[in-house]
Amino acid sequence: MREFMDADFLLSTGTAKWLYHTVAEPLPILDYHCHIDPQEIAEDHKFETISQIWLGGDHYKWRVMRAGGATEDKVTGTASDREKFRAFAAVMPQLIGSPLYHWSHLELQRVFGITEPLNADNADAVYDRCNEILKGYSARTLMEKFRVKAICTTDDPVDDLHWHDRIARDSTFSIQVLPAFRPDKAIHIEKVGFADYIRRLSDTVGRELTGAEDVAAALGERMDYFGTKGCLCADHGLDTCMYAEPDAKKAREAFALAMDGKTPSKDMADAYKTIVTIACAKKYTEKNWVMQIHFGCLRDNNKPQFAALGPDTGYDAVNSRSGVENVAPLLNAFAENSGLPKVVLYSLNPADNTAIATIMACFQGGGIAGKIQQGSAWWFNDSRPGMRQQLTDLACNGVFGRFVGMLTDSRSFLSYTRHEYFRRILCELLGEWVESGQYPNDKKQLEQLVADVCYHNTNEFFRFGVETGERGNG
Amino acid sequence: MREFMDADFLLSTGTAKWLYHTVAEPLPILDYHCHIDPQEIAEDHKFETISQIWLGGDHYKWRVMRAGGATEDKVTGTASDREKFRAFAAVMPQLIGSPLYHWSHLELQRVFGITEPLNADNADAVYDRCNEILKGYSARTLMEKFRVKAICTTDDPVDDLHWHDRIARDSTFSIQVLPAFRPDKAIHIEKVGFADYIRRLSDTVGRELTGAEDVAAALGERMDYFGTKGCLCADHGLDTCMYAEPDAKKAREAFALAMDGKTPSKDMADAYKTIVTIACAKKYTEKNWVMQIHFGCLRDNNKPQFAALGPDTGYDAVNSRSGVENVAPLLNAFAENSGLPKVVLYSLNPADNTAIATIMACFQGGGIAGKIQQGSAWWFNDSRPGMRQQLTDLACNGVFGRFVGMLTDSRSFLSYTRHEYFRRILCELLGEWVESGQYPNDKKQLEQLVADVCYHNTNEFFRFGVETGERGNG
Amino acid sequence: MREFMDADFLLSTGTAKWLYHTVAEPLPILDYHCHIDPQEIAEDHKFETISQIWLGGDHYKWRVMRAGGATEDKVTGTASDREKFRAFAAVMPQLIGSPLYHWSHLELQRVFGITEPLNADNADAVYDRCNEILKGYSARTLMEKFRVKAICTTDDPVDDLHWHDRIARDSTFSIQVLPAFRPDKAIHIEKVGFADYIRRLSDTVGRELTGAEDVAAALGERMDYFGTKGCLCADHGLDTCMYAEPDAKKAREAFALAMDGKTPSKDMADAYKTIVTIACAKKYTEKNWVMQIHFGCLRDNNKPQFAALGPDTGYDAVNSRSGVENVAPLLNAFAENSGLPKVVLYSLNPADNTAIATIMACFQGGGIAGKIQQGSAWWFNDSRPGMRQQLTDLACNGVFGRFVGMLTDSRSFLSYTRHEYFRRILCELLGEWVESGQYPNDKKQLEQLVADVCYHNTNEFFRFGVETGERGNG
Repeated sequence: MREFMDADFLLSTGTAKWLYHTVAEPLPILDYHCHIDPQEIAEDHKFETISQIWLGGDHYKWRVMRAGGATEDKVTGTASDREKFRAFAAVMPQLIGSPLYHWSHLELQRVFGITEPLNADNADAVYDRCNEILKGYSARTLMEKFRVKAICTTDDPVDDLHWHDRIARDSTFSIQVLPAFRPDKAIHIEKVGFADYIRRLSDTVGRELTGAEDVAAALGERMDYFGTKGCLCADHGLDTCMYAEPDAKKAREAFALAMDGKTPSKDMADAYKTIVTIACAKKYTEKNWVMQIHFGCLRDNNKPQFAALGPDTGYDAVNSRSGVENVAPLLNAFAENSGLPKVVLYSLNPADNTAIATIMACFQGGGIAGKIQQGSAWWFNDSRPGMRQQLTDLACNGVFGRFVGMLTDSRSFLSYTRHEYFRRILCELLGEWVESGQYPNDKKQLEQLVADVCYHNTNEFFRFGVETGERGNG
Repeated sequence: MREFMDADFLLSTGTAKWLYHTVAEPLPILDYHCHIDPQEIAEDHKFETISQIWLGGDHYKWRVMRAGGATEDKVTGTASDREKFRAFAAVMPQLIGSPLYHWSHLELQRVFGITEPLNADNADAVYDRCNEILKGYSARTLMEKFRVKAICTTDDPVDDLHWHDRIARDSTFSIQVLPAFRPDKAIHIEKVGFADYIRRLSDTVGRELTGAEDVAAALGERMDYFGTKGCLCADHGLDTCMYAEPDAKKAREAFALAMDGKTPSKDMADAYKTIVTIACAKKYTEKNWVMQIHFGCLRDNNKPQFAALGPDTGYDAVNSRSGVENVAPLLNAFAENSGLPKVVLYSLNPADNTAIATIMACFQGGGIAGKIQQGSAWWFNDSRPGMRQQLTDLACNGVFGRFVGMLTDSRSFLSYTRHEYFRRILCELLGEWVESGQYPNDKKQLEQLVADVCYHNTNEFFRFGVETGERGNG
Repeated sequence: MREFMDADFLLSTGTAKWLYHTVAEPLPILDYHCHIDPQEIAEDHKFETISQIWLGGDHYKWRVMRAGGATEDKVTGTASDREKFRAFAAVMPQLIGSPLYHWSHLELQRVFGITEPLNADNADAVYDRCNEILKGYSARTLMEKFRVKAICTTDDPVDDLHWHDRIARDSTFSIQVLPAFRPDKAIHIEKVGFADYIRRLSDTVGRELTGAEDVAAALGERMDYFGTKGCLCADHGLDTCMYAEPDAKKAREAFALAMDGKTPSKDMADAYKTIVTIACAKKYTEKNWVMQIHFGCLRDNNKPQFAALGPDTGYDAVNSRSGVENVAPLLNAFAENSGLPKVVLYSLNPADNTAIATIMACFQGGGIAGKIQQGSAWWFNDSRPGMRQQLTDLACNGVFGRFVGMLTDSRSFLSYTRHEYFRRILCELLGEWVESGQYPNDKKQLEQLVADVCYHNTNEFFRFGVETGERGNG
């Protein structure tokens, strides 16, 4: 019987413990994909209650609260912070096997020093103690506590990035807070609000945008602007990965319809989306940016609740029609247009893992190690079984040693423990392989593998340029 | 080396053994979904040979007999009961890794006290011994032996439920034998026999049915009738989960064509099916029934054998086009019509597990704990790996402690051992999580989790109202 | 801590070790599906460098070299054999968790006696030593070293099989080298080159071919010819498994268009393909051949690289649209035409495993044990996790003891170690089941299971007729 979530949590072999504690644990964090609000860093936001930082924007927690029987007022409603905390604490003991159970306790342990399991009985005491301890923290000191060296936020092309500017100008704060370019609203031509967004983009670049080529050029201009603010990567969120022949006529029709407030056919819309996406990829290649492509999400499924609460409130799901069959044609279209950038592919559907690992291998090359990446187990897959599965699938069909590893994808300053969670799972898996004789017990090589996957690969791939001393791997 | 299927079968840790033997094993059985013929209970049927009760209607066993080389006369044909038993016994040793191997031996152990592995050599001796022991059993005494407290059979809306009546009136028998409402024949407008069935339903309610609204109203009337017989749940079996805009005109055309013996287009048919299904859901909500939705089955694949033997004879398979992409729109349509009942979702395709777990979370709420459920690993997935996978997927994206657990889905009075199989697998999994430090070793909490998932959640969710003493949770 | 890849590699229990070393390891190899060039056997080819035999045609290795950062000249280009070997050795340490890491070291150990892990540091020394040892080997002596008894190559229907003839006539060489019938080019009517191929087939049979029936008849004639050369099986490689109503008119239109250099619609093409495939299946049934059906591959995804290097150079992937939904209708069409042969089904998409295992069971029967088989984990799934998954899925829904086991699917004379890899994984899995009490510790039965799956089932199913002494089963 192991102790609950002790220092060797998830580590069962000597090799795993050694790799984690000696190599992985001390490494700083590069969080190349998150949804932190840069204003909170710029203003060095302080949180009055743990409910604000823990439950405030966390739709993962909202979902289990609802499923556990909490009424909406205690989830997103008008109940007090204490009542909300109590409601979450009450569902905790039922979350056996959930990554939320582990994330939550890792956060309680690492930031608040609380090692007892949270439940209805100790909710009030834990709440009070956390709030007391929170007084000693702010957005920045939390990032420093977790030894974060760089993060990439998620930003709209029309954003002027003034919060990023303000952070960069502040010489008292040395963590890189870089924007990431997320052009979804200019691409999702079938969605409500497209025409309005194009007008905003038009205003931003100071000229009328009359079609896909114009939009692509405007986005390119904004990329250059983002580049001046340190941007190193982009993120394309596609509910379903699309590909259509880049037919300019269809794209034109789609654009005209959409700007007129009408919904173009899927066929037309995909032509537009493909053309703009290819153009983006070409520009990313020129800029040597990383292009992240996230797909396979089914959003806003509960329309009455969407009407009441809006997007990102816990009503999204895995899209079993992820469009993974379009990934290879899309990457090929990039390649044929001399614009295949470094790419990270993420599907929300774990059934796509093997397909992605094998598609990715078709676009490696050019002497760039790990040019195409299979992204970390994402969102709903961000669990111990999900991460083990992604690591195993990647190992079977990719080059494990080149993996760029973990990200938080989070809005919260407490979520850096997800890197710890990943590193433990990684070290345990490597330990299993080594101790069962599937890989040599070569300490130097193992140290390098772990350090590369947890840190160095990301630093090189995204070009953070963080000084990290000697790197073993060439 | 562990003994073959001994008292600690599938239990490897102290925690697992303690949870199973102390908590799970003594709990009675609530089998909320089965295909038991109520006539056999009403008449307290006795079985002359084990072949009758074991092989008589069990297409799981027929499939492996065919694959093992048995000719059809020994499967469904005219061979003697002894010959059929021999044929099954001969294939048994080749079934390593199969749930059938375990189910069969659990049944031999628990009911017949036979602990030796069945094979061609001991087939005759086992056959004789089983038949001797069967003389001491009947349908009812078998149910009592397994400590069954309630079952839900599967019943046609036009059924008058007279066997259920007769059982209910019999004061010598205290097990609840409740009907469950299965309206598939009134919904599957594209299938042969639809028009005839609608005429039967019309006769039953005593008026002509001229379209989707009429059919829905007739079904509602039958629900009320079923309600008077103790019905607490319905089951919709959809080969592929459908969703279409509930277009009344299309539904009307579909109905007219189908009643005229013609096959409507898929588009039309889905409109009809969606309209009737939404109406059912609304009525279930009013009645506070549980709505089970089973989908992802590809039926009657071998047409020459279907012509010879009919349905449910072992020629069904997993449908990789399960229609899981329509589940969210369908549940949303329920919600938008103020009629989202308690729902259990089952796909036959295990690749849908994560999608279902995440879709389900989008429709939780209203202060009802575990309102939407991911059903137990079903049919072809009802194996140790399949159940572990379902439990793990559910734990990762749902609230494990609210799960309503196992059902037999069986036609046989011997199949209650599947609850034992499930409980062992459940306790082993919890034991792993606890003993590896992933969950606290909190005995009271663990007892409650196991008792809830094995018994109390089902009792509450379906409202069986079985008196079960104090319940720890909630 | 176990030693790296020692004698008990992948074997952790006493039962596993005993089964492997006593039963599996000594068994000869029947490799019923490979891509060995028969000319190399006929001429008893010798290899000058390990790069020629190891890297020469191995697109598995090319993929990881590209992903590891090697430039194309060191992969398929003009770099020297030594440079290519160095490039592969350099990526090896990063391949932790990859089957390639194990295959490569098994090959180094078994043929070259090299037990040290390959890396950049020892690349030159290993290269020199391997080349020295290769002097003592040839195509034939390598096959003999691995105790190969029979192989099936992959051959075009228009092939005159003269190399097979020459091998068969050579009384100094006793290994069966049989052709296998691969009619893809006559079926893939939508692909470039179809018309030319049909003209070649026409020339071969000496008459004009004017449609699907003619093509089927010509293929039948070639099957008879192949039969005279010892052929026992066919292989159909379908990127996506198709099924369409066998509409003669559509097939005629498709053929006319294709012979005119045009691309028929999918609908038409599928009618043609289905008709020819059904006719093939009928003829295979008459000849008692095994029909292998491989599907789920997405080929030639990187068009710039395809243009430069051609097919089979490492640019294929898993096709998530594998067409698994068409497998049941296709097999049913065989059955309805009295022509359901022995079949082996392989999908490249592991998400299809359960669907295939359940579809297969719908077509078993006729008193032929194991008539329909789920093929070994194939290509990208040919890893330890992939093979365990296939074995487990098969065990859950099929009859494990009837499985025909492993094949290499390889172009290389070193790849027979993949049978060793499979046998170790098989014995480990059985050992787990036995030692955990899930199957009786019945040594005789276990010996038979392992011998059957590794050897006897294949010998009987394909009718190699290799004398193997007493067989326990059946």
